[in-house]
Amino acid sequence: MTTELFDEAPDDTRAAIMQATYRALCEHGYAGLTIQRIGDEFPKSKSLLYHHYDGKDDLLLDFLSFMLDRFRETVLRWESEAPETRLRELIDYVVPVDADDERHEFRKAMVELRAGAATDEAYREHFTESDRFFQDEVASVIAEGVDRGDVGDVDPAAVAAHLQTTFEGWMVRSATADFDAEARVLRSELHRYVDALVAEDGR
Amino acid sequence: MTTELFDEAPDDTRAAIMQATYRALCEHGYAGLTIQRIGDEFPKSKSLLYHHYDGKDDLLLDFLSFMLDRFRETVLRWESEAPETRLRELIDYVVPVDADDERHEFRKAMVELRAGAATDEAYREHFTESDRFFQDEVASVIAEGVDRGDVGDVDPAAVAAHLQTTFEGWMVRSATADFDAEARVLRSELHRYVDALVAEDGR
Repeated sequence: MTTELFDEAPDDTRAAIMQATYRALCEHGYAGLTIQRIGDEFPKSKSLLYHHYDGKDDLLLDFLSFMLDRFRETVLRWESEAPETRLRELIDYVVPVDADDERHEFRKAMVELRAGAATDEAYREHFTESDRFFQDEVASVIAEGVDRGDVGDVDPAAVAAHLQTTFEGWMVRSATADFDAEARVLRSELHRYVDALVAEDGR
Repeated sequence: MTTELFDEAPDDTRAAIMQATYRALCEHGYAGLTIQRIGDEFPKSKSLLYHHYDGKDDLLLDFLSFMLDRFRETVLRWESEAPETRLRELIDYVVPVDADDERHEFRKAMVELRAGAATDEAYREHFTESDRFFQDEVASVIAEGVDRGDVGDVDPAAVAAHLQTTFEGWMVRSATADFDAEARVLRSELHRYVDALVAEDGR
């Protein structure tokens, strides 16, 4: 799978705004984000930002939607690989043992954005859709594994709910607490969980 | 285990302030919380709030510490029960299938507070300590199960990291997305995970 979120030089205005937003989020977090700071990362005229968006939250909702589409494209690139391999790659992606600073800062900003969904309906709708997408993707990988006989007789939707919930938990814990040393432990335990899924009895 | 967080009528000032804070958080969330609104829930003189705390964040940090102590007391009340039962009770507590509104609102406020730990060092220290406490507690339950032969030959720390991460993920998902129908699925999948732990091969 690829983890490149942006092209080297986005060729359309929206993609360029999204890249500027990404950079500003990594640098300032959600709380410190302003349209001005996004503008500082934007190579074109700042007036374009105000032309396209009503404000910070309007822009951020479009950003979340853009990022979900990027992930959709990324995930679809796995199509040809074996289900077990795809599950293991996903675990390694969500629980990196040596996340770089940029990714760590971005994850923090995403956790702040997600908390906004506790009270904001538009954010809540986005995260419901995005959780649903990722969970269904995991479920379809597991279902394919069951069909091929690579994975035991488990309920793909239930296993996917478990995995997606664990992934979400790790994103929050790694962004809000000091658990660097835990990444290796959790990652290998999740691989043990997959070992059990692929064992003959499906446990 | 008990889920009563407060006595009917707290007899000391700090406990009364904490109860008022809890009520204000359930009603207004973190974003809408003010010392004034905590004062509205406080039966004694509001000036006591200003006397004891430097401001909202100072009070909230004490609140988090108070709540962690309450949970410590709650968890310790399980001492006499069988490890497997305690694990299952914990799952049912963290993944309720019919959470009442108050608990749901409190969970949302806690998720907002936790997101603050992405950028605030004092919050981060608290959540690192509280995660560590809950995870160690789960690990000790599993270790006791291994010792008694109720649980297979697993690494208690690794299984606890997995479970605690899943629990944290569910708290965030249930507070920030529409996944009510998922609670039953996740809960029964977690019980299946415990079934596997107690199976003879430890899977």
